[in-house]
Amino acid sequence: MLAPPWITVPPPGYGGVESVVDSLTEALVRRGHSVTLFCAPGSQSSAHVVSLLDETHPAEIERSLYEADHVARAFEQIDLAADDARFDVVHDHCGFTALAMADRLETPVVHTLHGQFTASTAAFYVRHGHKAALVGISRTQLGSAPPGLVGAGSIPNPIDVRAWPLREHKDDYLLWIGRMTAEKGPHRAIAAARSAGVPLVLAGVIQPGQQAFFDREVAPHIDGERVRFLGEVGGSVKRAIFAGARALLMPIRWEEPFGMVMVEALACGTPVIAFPEGAARELVSDGQTGFLVEDERAMAAAVGRLSRIAARDCRAWVAEYCDVDVVAAAYERTYRSVARPGARSFAHV
Amino acid sequence: MLAPPWITVPPPGYGGVESVVDSLTEALVRRGHSVTLFCAPGSQSSAHVVSLLDETHPAEIERSLYEADHVARAFEQIDLAADDARFDVVHDHCGFTALAMADRLETPVVHTLHGQFTASTAAFYVRHGHKAALVGISRTQLGSAPPGLVGAGSIPNPIDVRAWPLREHKDDYLLWIGRMTAEKGPHRAIAAARSAGVPLVLAGVIQPGQQAFFDREVAPHIDGERVRFLGEVGGSVKRAIFAGARALLMPIRWEEPFGMVMVEALACGTPVIAFPEGAARELVSDGQTGFLVEDERAMAAAVGRLSRIAARDCRAWVAEYCDVDVVAAAYERTYRSVARPGARSFAHV
Repeated sequence: MLAPPWITVPPPGYGGVESVVDSLTEALVRRGHSVTLFCAPGSQSSAHVVSLLDETHPAEIERSLYEADHVARAFEQIDLAADDARFDVVHDHCGFTALAMADRLETPVVHTLHGQFTASTAAFYVRHGHKAALVGISRTQLGSAPPGLVGAGSIPNPIDVRAWPLREHKDDYLLWIGRMTAEKGPHRAIAAARSAGVPLVLAGVIQPGQQAFFDREVAPHIDGERVRFLGEVGGSVKRAIFAGARALLMPIRWEEPFGMVMVEALACGTPVIAFPEGAARELVSDGQTGFLVEDERAMAAAVGRLSRIAARDCRAWVAEYCDVDVVAAAYERTYRSVARPGARSFAHV
Repeated sequence: MLAPPWITVPPPGYGGVESVVDSLTEALVRRGHSVTLFCAPGSQSSAHVVSLLDETHPAEIERSLYEADHVARAFEQIDLAADDARFDVVHDHCGFTALAMADRLETPVVHTLHGQFTASTAAFYVRHGHKAALVGISRTQLGSAPPGLVGAGSIPNPIDVRAWPLREHKDDYLLWIGRMTAEKGPHRAIAAARSAGVPLVLAGVIQPGQQAFFDREVAPHIDGERVRFLGEVGGSVKRAIFAGARALLMPIRWEEPFGMVMVEALACGTPVIAFPEGAARELVSDGQTGFLVEDERAMAAAVGRLSRIAARDCRAWVAEYCDVDVVAAAYERTYRSVARPGARSFAHV
């Protein structure tokens, strides 16, 4: 597993890629694989941890000095592994350098597409995508892939469903959680909750550059009763907030390639009411695990239909679709399809 | 020649690395070499130009997406060159990715160290420096190299001396040119010139983030007579300003690894009065091509000794030390030392 050099695995706070690497790595170790995790210093894992640079670089993400250094050091260690400890496959989560150079590594590479396609990244993948087995994180994301990226399948981001509490009897609030940006829609969640007459809990960090939006669109509505703001939440508090909510509101306006909060809500038996944008279209099974709605008014109306959704159905759906063991098994199939002939680890899987 | 992907060769404005690549490439072509220049789109050269990305990225310097893409594409073309057109050597000027991966390219690589060593870059070079033949741009720069970078020699940045006018009879002004930062010392140049009783001409661009310094330390002194400010200058105007000055003032307070403006001044027969920092210690021959002085007061005093310096000596010194043909010949020796056995181009050089 080749994690990025920027922050630790698991991440200290926000860190989507590092969370995925953490969950998947732990599952693969549990499932009997011999896994080495190349990662930022300070990382912790049940796998064999090899940190490469001397420091993390959370404020210098995608700086070539560090990415090239990290990836080149990892490639060297992969090449130098003793004959009886050769790697069968490299799973790369690390930006661009490793994929661009993957054809210069003897060991086959699987590369997970963690981001949204932009004009810039699309051009990159058209050029270098053939150097690894590419895996997307949603069909929606792959739908916006450039022509020529044929053959990439999608495997959802993993969640350890057992780590999240199923709660069938909910408290009387709706939940919105995310970054304080217009595309994430906290202001639309406020409008929808008000229209539905149900209190709203907002959670999430205000990142640099988001204060003005928060002050203008969110703060004036916070009254500690109908609209409450908790700031950043994590750990058991986060799980309890997810579990207690009548529904998670996702009034997003962007092509989000995945949406971890939807999966986390569903694991707690909490339905999701989402705009049909990005991966919400596949993570919400309309009428079964929540509702796909076109605007704030329809979102408010859908709150009235929440009694039709069973908490157990939400959890069952997410357990089947993206529990970490399901995801690990899917990646095992991908690894097996590209691993070197005679690879040890996959002979008996 | 592997130029960076950020801006064109030659650069449209400021672009130290791209200027060096331009001068050296033109000289190598003149000297009979078959040169391919891998570079940003829009570049112009007498060499065979191969631009790799679709756009320049002047505002995204060192972003790994573009650096990895650019370098990987160049490596592919280098690998794929037909047998009768194989490259003997790659001369890399392109940040970090190419050096970190140079051991994965069959063709040998020469890498010019264009920057100052910092804690971060030193760690990088300790780890990856052995993958190419490293060349510094001054002995001073290499003096701050980390232990373990043994064997790197220095070759100064090139100047086409014939393109700069020698002027023996000077106008009555001193010149400062550079970025508007405290380390470059325009405020110290103002103090020294005032103390010497000689008018000062300031030239240079005010880059983002430098306006406050300029407004506080420089602007109040500009009177259009004793202190004049020309803004950014280029082309024939720049050459005329260099040629007409009694001296170039370099009251710098940082370990500048080179200092192109000193070389340009000397080519015009204009002495340099510099603080003994960075490469000024080797680019100024004290008493022959200018003076090395400790502070503004000594700088003012040195203005009174300028009649002892002959313009022809300045030009002769720079012609011998870093004229582009001298530099190209030095690089030819480096190329020859690493070129593949049986390399064509060097059999008859």
